Amino acid sequence: MREVFHQSLEDVQTRLVEIAELVTVAIDKATRAFGSSDVALAEEVIEADAVIDEKAIALDELAIEILARQQPVARDLRIVVSALRISASLERMGDIAEHIAQLTRMRFPERAIPKGLKSTFTKMGELDVEVARQLTELLRTQDLALAEKIRNDDDKLDDLHISVFEKVLSDTWQGEASATVDATLASRYHERFADHAVSVAKKVAYLATGDWVTETDAIEVIVNGQR
Amino acid sequence: MREVFHQSLEDVQTRLVEIAELVTVAIDKATRAFGSSDVALAEEVIEADAVIDEKAIALDELAIEILARQQPVARDLRIVVSALRISASLERMGDIAEHIAQLTRMRFPERAIPKGLKSTFTKMGELDVEVARQLTELLRTQDLALAEKIRNDDDKLDDLHISVFEKVLSDTWQGEASATVDATLASRYHERFADHAVSVAKKVAYLATGDWVTETDAIEVIVNGQR
Repeated sequence: MREVFHQSLEDVQTRLVEIAELVTVAIDKATRAFGSSDVALAEEVIEADAVIDEKAIALDELAIEILARQQPVARDLRIVVSALRISASLERMGDIAEHIAQLTRMRFPERAIPKGLKSTFTKMGELDVEVARQLTELLRTQDLALAEKIRNDDDKLDDLHISVFEKVLSDTWQGEASATVDATLASRYHERFADHAVSVAKKVAYLATGDWVTETDAIEVIVNGQR
Repeated sequence: MREVFHQSLEDVQTRLVEIAELVTVAIDKATRAFGSSDVALAEEVIEADAVIDEKAIALDELAIEILARQQPVARDLRIVVSALRISASLERMGDIAEHIAQLTRMRFPERAIPKGLKSTFTKMGELDVEVARQLTELLRTQDLALAEKIRNDDDKLDDLHISVFEKVLSDTWQGEASATVDATLASRYHERFADHAVSVAKKVAYLATGDWVTETDAIEVIVNGQR
């Protein structure tokens, strides 16, 4: 029974990694499409989101099947429940990539990226892809050093998000209302990816340490390597 | 064992209703604080969010304990898993109320609500409170007619959300960039409550019908009363 259970858990992990890889591709394409007003690339992201949603649902079904058939307890149970939550966060990251792609498509043939913010959004997009890659690797390896990198990148993204508002609210901002709306929404979306990644990283910290901790405690595990 | 299980499920339901009530209060206070620039009321919402978070964590712990001790299968198992997801959505609705309160506090003593959008945001706030009340009642009674009302209110909120953008992007919009930013973020927050409520309603439709359905199928249950 233990054998079967561990096989099932490996299956869950493999699928989480697979979904994280698809999400990484979506974020990469969406942020590049946004930066270059590439509507064809944006369309790809919008179409591919259904695949992420399906895979997340299939993973949830597998987790429920494991709960029903193998009735795990204690740490094993918490691992399966965590997988359900991680899949929800990954699915949401896919949705946000789709929102960025929709913003790109809506503005086409105009540029979705407001003037004067090109380099900021390029940096945000690159950091988002880096975060998604680190998250995929974290799910694959449970290397908690990656969780700390994700947290650092999240801090950088928060700073860039604030810098977008500073720019938009400064006296030198010449953008029309539509540019202000786009900058506000796009910046929020770019920043949200990392919030979800941090949330997943906290759950993986739990999986790795085996201690059930609240999110606040978990971050201590990530930062200090101990409770 | 069945008796114990049903007692546990009732406990889960009671707690979900209790969290939904707290979320309703948070949404009511946050949207009123936003409308009247009432920073004291906004502070109340920000402080109270920790209580919602704690209660959601406690509920999750209870659900995990039920899974471990009573090892439910089939429909019972899916009910417990749904409760975990519903609690996550409610907790997120509390976070959004907190975001609106923070926006109010950040702009104080200026008004957070941009000129010319007062009546739109008042309507959105009232609809949000109505949605939250209906959701609480739905969790209490499993009356699926409420799920349909929530969906209708979500449609109205989507329309109001679009009308905010139309106003902001029209030639007559005189707002400064800060007003445009506030309108964009606030409108998005006001509209998101109902998305989460619809998502919870879909899960309750599942709980009520007992059929495990994907979210797409579940909406058919809500709308047509059958699959």
